[in-house]
Amino acid sequence: MPIRKPVFNPPFNVVRASHVELGVRDLGGSRAFYVDCLGYLVTEASADALYLRAVEERNHHSIVLRRSPEPHAHCVGFKVATEEDLDRAAFWFARLGLPTAFPEVPFQGRTLRTADPLGLPLDFYVRMDQAQSMLQRYAAYQGARIQRIDHINCFTPDVQASYDFYTDIGFRLTEYTETDDPDAKLWAVWMHRKGNVHDLAFTNGRGPRLDHIGVWTASALDILDICDVMATSGYLANMERGPGRHGISNAFFLYTRDPDGHRVELFTSDYLTVDPDLEPIRWSLADPQRQTLWGQPAPKSWFEEGSVFGDVPVREPVLAAQPIVAR
Amino acid sequence: MPIRKPVFNPPFNVVRASHVELGVRDLGGSRAFYVDCLGYLVTEASADALYLRAVEERNHHSIVLRRSPEPHAHCVGFKVATEEDLDRAAFWFARLGLPTAFPEVPFQGRTLRTADPLGLPLDFYVRMDQAQSMLQRYAAYQGARIQRIDHINCFTPDVQASYDFYTDIGFRLTEYTETDDPDAKLWAVWMHRKGNVHDLAFTNGRGPRLDHIGVWTASALDILDICDVMATSGYLANMERGPGRHGISNAFFLYTRDPDGHRVELFTSDYLTVDPDLEPIRWSLADPQRQTLWGQPAPKSWFEEGSVFGDVPVREPVLAAQPIVAR
Amino acid sequence: MPIRKPVFNPPFNVVRASHVELGVRDLGGSRAFYVDCLGYLVTEASADALYLRAVEERNHHSIVLRRSPEPHAHCVGFKVATEEDLDRAAFWFARLGLPTAFPEVPFQGRTLRTADPLGLPLDFYVRMDQAQSMLQRYAAYQGARIQRIDHINCFTPDVQASYDFYTDIGFRLTEYTETDDPDAKLWAVWMHRKGNVHDLAFTNGRGPRLDHIGVWTASALDILDICDVMATSGYLANMERGPGRHGISNAFFLYTRDPDGHRVELFTSDYLTVDPDLEPIRWSLADPQRQTLWGQPAPKSWFEEGSVFGDVPVREPVLAAQPIVAR
Amino acid sequence: MPIRKPVFNPPFNVVRASHVELGVRDLGGSRAFYVDCLGYLVTEASADALYLRAVEERNHHSIVLRRSPEPHAHCVGFKVATEEDLDRAAFWFARLGLPTAFPEVPFQGRTLRTADPLGLPLDFYVRMDQAQSMLQRYAAYQGARIQRIDHINCFTPDVQASYDFYTDIGFRLTEYTETDDPDAKLWAVWMHRKGNVHDLAFTNGRGPRLDHIGVWTASALDILDICDVMATSGYLANMERGPGRHGISNAFFLYTRDPDGHRVELFTSDYLTVDPDLEPIRWSLADPQRQTLWGQPAPKSWFEEGSVFGDVPVREPVLAAQPIVAR
Repeated sequence: MPIRKPVFNPPFNVVRASHVELGVRDLGGSRAFYVDCLGYLVTEASADALYLRAVEERNHHSIVLRRSPEPHAHCVGFKVATEEDLDRAAFWFARLGLPTAFPEVPFQGRTLRTADPLGLPLDFYVRMDQAQSMLQRYAAYQGARIQRIDHINCFTPDVQASYDFYTDIGFRLTEYTETDDPDAKLWAVWMHRKGNVHDLAFTNGRGPRLDHIGVWTASALDILDICDVMATSGYLANMERGPGRHGISNAFFLYTRDPDGHRVELFTSDYLTVDPDLEPIRWSLADPQRQTLWGQPAPKSWFEEGSVFGDVPVREPVLAAQPIVAR
Repeated sequence: MPIRKPVFNPPFNVVRASHVELGVRDLGGSRAFYVDCLGYLVTEASADALYLRAVEERNHHSIVLRRSPEPHAHCVGFKVATEEDLDRAAFWFARLGLPTAFPEVPFQGRTLRTADPLGLPLDFYVRMDQAQSMLQRYAAYQGARIQRIDHINCFTPDVQASYDFYTDIGFRLTEYTETDDPDAKLWAVWMHRKGNVHDLAFTNGRGPRLDHIGVWTASALDILDICDVMATSGYLANMERGPGRHGISNAFFLYTRDPDGHRVELFTSDYLTVDPDLEPIRWSLADPQRQTLWGQPAPKSWFEEGSVFGDVPVREPVLAAQPIVAR
Repeated sequence: MPIRKPVFNPPFNVVRASHVELGVRDLGGSRAFYVDCLGYLVTEASADALYLRAVEERNHHSIVLRRSPEPHAHCVGFKVATEEDLDRAAFWFARLGLPTAFPEVPFQGRTLRTADPLGLPLDFYVRMDQAQSMLQRYAAYQGARIQRIDHINCFTPDVQASYDFYTDIGFRLTEYTETDDPDAKLWAVWMHRKGNVHDLAFTNGRGPRLDHIGVWTASALDILDICDVMATSGYLANMERGPGRHGISNAFFLYTRDPDGHRVELFTSDYLTVDPDLEPIRWSLADPQRQTLWGQPAPKSWFEEGSVFGDVPVREPVLAAQPIVAR
Repeated sequence: MPIRKPVFNPPFNVVRASHVELGVRDLGGSRAFYVDCLGYLVTEASADALYLRAVEERNHHSIVLRRSPEPHAHCVGFKVATEEDLDRAAFWFARLGLPTAFPEVPFQGRTLRTADPLGLPLDFYVRMDQAQSMLQRYAAYQGARIQRIDHINCFTPDVQASYDFYTDIGFRLTEYTETDDPDAKLWAVWMHRKGNVHDLAFTNGRGPRLDHIGVWTASALDILDICDVMATSGYLANMERGPGRHGISNAFFLYTRDPDGHRVELFTSDYLTVDPDLEPIRWSLADPQRQTLWGQPAPKSWFEEGSVFGDVPVREPVLAAQPIVAR
């Protein structure tokens, strides 16, 4: 039985998924995609990096784009509640023999840089510089009118191991996909801290790699609108999947690929998960409505392509089960 | 050069596409689909037929479902402006050697039953019994909140011949698809009388057959909503294509199939075409955004499956050019 | 009985309401309002004038803003079908002793400049320079994402006289407001040529004056969005009424005032009116849902303030009946 | 300085606002309003009570309507995380000399019945019977397509006292309204546990009384749709305020009154507030955009009318400052 009880008193208090840092080869092209097309706001721009936030966000950035010879993902970042939580997190990771460091990170307070047992690079911090929220500066809304970062989805070579690790540190399961054999295996998990379907999800595959970041819009129409914009302004090939509704999470979605292939999901319409007695929802890997409630299978690229994390070695998945894929 | 000037003083005045009559094998199953799922209103029900209208419509019916051993389409109906137009229409068809009759038709005034030169059965009439418009009885809105019939789309074995015939009687071209060879051939046409993109369209294929009726909703969200309903109430397999945006007509669409395979397109967001000097828009058959602005090709069924008209013989198309199809 | 039968064979064929020309005191401020805020596209700009169109429009302009010492309306423009219609129109107006001239008008073909019997200045023309439609250049959509001009609404001192005149030239009544006395009087009329609720409406009041132009958006959400933008970018005081739903026409609306007080209605969701046997809908002047289906009365300014037409004298209305007004 | 630091380690862990119980005089009329019009689902109905839930909810009920000679509110309910939290809560309230009891409550586990220092009746519980979530049974969505309860808003005679009390038990301030005098006074507060703008709000006024419950919809269009339904199905007089956008909370809203005058706010579009360092937003009582971003003042009834809690005495507010009201 692969599913466990949630841990309500975790060793440290993670508040939410906060940001990602992506390596991009051409900052100009990335700016065109994220800012001019998707409508991200630029909090800070230098010759080497762009710090972006969405209209609701007061945090200095939820996406950092850094000029890089290769299109790697650099890290995924989580906010913790207090400085004590940061110290407890460092202790927890160190005790497991995992790397811990406190590098200087621009625009952030004290930052713990570590990695999970599968090698996924993680940043934890408490304070970030605050910027002006543009939530009620509606004239600044552009593109997909993205409001905030919602979640981070990664490929892992061992979903059970990833699930176990994040359960231990307090992430709570909301939905999961299993194989149908008598000895059912976890194939994907959706886990949260902030009270909606997920802050962090894992999909079975070569990993650790970043599958996508999910960013939240207020309305499904914002997502239809950006489809029209992308399809008619040179970004048709960047529309990978959707728009559609997921069975899992009930979200309305569009998957896009940035100029380096990093995947960004526009996402809305999931649900509240704060109740401690919320029962996770099980999906069969063989159920086509799991992926897309309306029946369209995901393209093969969605299951196979992802962003590697710097020089973190990628392993083949321990589980060979295959999802339903479009041609 | 296959495109002609519009005829502004046609031999008789067609107002708009008005209704279709479909033969269905199981009235109960059809009622479940059209009324309980899509939200059509029943104006009249008998043991043998259902007369349906959408919320805006004052006409007694825009869809007639008649019990039938085979799932045939029976006819497509157009409203003309005056009784004189009806007589002029009869004269026009008779002069071309086409059949003309004035059968008794329930709930309609004098009705001319004829066929176009390709064999497509046509009804023309001036007056239909009037029912209560439910446009401002919002509590009666259900399902896809369909407001009115918009258009009729047929397969024809000879698009040029169909185009020429309907041009002569005043239908005006708004968009068309051509092959790319030096001797370009018409592959599909969209023609109107009422001032939006179409009342009648023709697609190259085995015909004459009904491809679909198009019905109008006020919002793209109505179409997303019915996707959710269909996908979770036993109609997943009835969702054939979409939701998506057409390049042609700019419409947001979902194609559904009723229990007999008759195709119904939910449709919104086209544009005004009343200007006499409106230039038709040309699309290349090889342009993938012609079908779907967002890139998804149509399924093969969309181009191959349609409803035959009673015992009207179906011919192979004169044009062999193939559209882009999904696997 | 103030209501008459429609005239189906009018003396000349008006296609639709096409454009207005407004005198504005500060072109920069007007540009900020129409272009930067509402999202109009600039087809042509000179030191003295701005020619604007909405995203769907291929006509060179639907609004002309001309620098003017006073904020007058200059004229309202209608497209007619053919050059012959233009000559027939000139003959018709001349026969009634009304002024006729054919001035040179930039970006338009031959243009008849005349006035109706109440003094309302009218331009009729057949051809206008054509611009690129931006309907499928979605990246160019801004502000309220306005698609096209829909209608023109004027105060008239004699609704019955205005109604009679435009009925004679083929405008067809769709809805009307009457007083409730035994000898019912017309208080407002909505009349169309293009097949929706109106191209031209008249409201009882000091006139002739322009009450507003109505411009069409594809979705009610576009109107909610521009409310948010206007309210948070310095245009709060320019939001005069709404958003709301009219009982009359069923439209979802917002009334705005430009920097000179000219009124622009954002408008969507009316219905198809092409059927020649469509019965006009009667409303009582005393019905509060006539104005706003949701009950809110219109502000007094809506009934009292309007744009005078140059030096055209304004008369008091012959009918003293008062609508319901908010404090 | 009336604003305090949040308490991150409260004496017991409240998860969220969970439900209200309302006394109604006519269960049939209440059912027509909540179920047939607003679209609530009936989990359980008896001769004396209706237990209702919204489409996302797995809890047995979020609204209980109980037959009552007077239209009182009976209590407001909050879910706590664990049974230990329940005991800690009982200890906390008892220590303050407040009433504590553990009555049998149908469909709920152990339930603490108490009251805050102002007399507001409170129920705390951990477990409620679980029902089928209808989130992906889209055919069951009706009316306003309400997804879940969001918050509870009460009048209090002493906003500062209420704010202090709920701050002590871990409710965190997101927005507040102050008077503008040098010795600024709190006039209203919005406080949360679940991570959006509020679970509980207090408005200055005669109290304790229930101002309203707020229920969440996925889209602003759901709220526009129910306006149309209410306005045309006999509930026009039950639409008290809106639709509109609040400055405070950024929510899109409609306030309705049920047949007994209990107020229900349809609500969407606020924002995420889980960050512990989120700075509360201050609004001046004199700012008209505080109430409604688009400028319309609230009607006087909104500030004066509310539901009394059984026989709990109501006191005049200690603060005399007046909000902006419509005539």
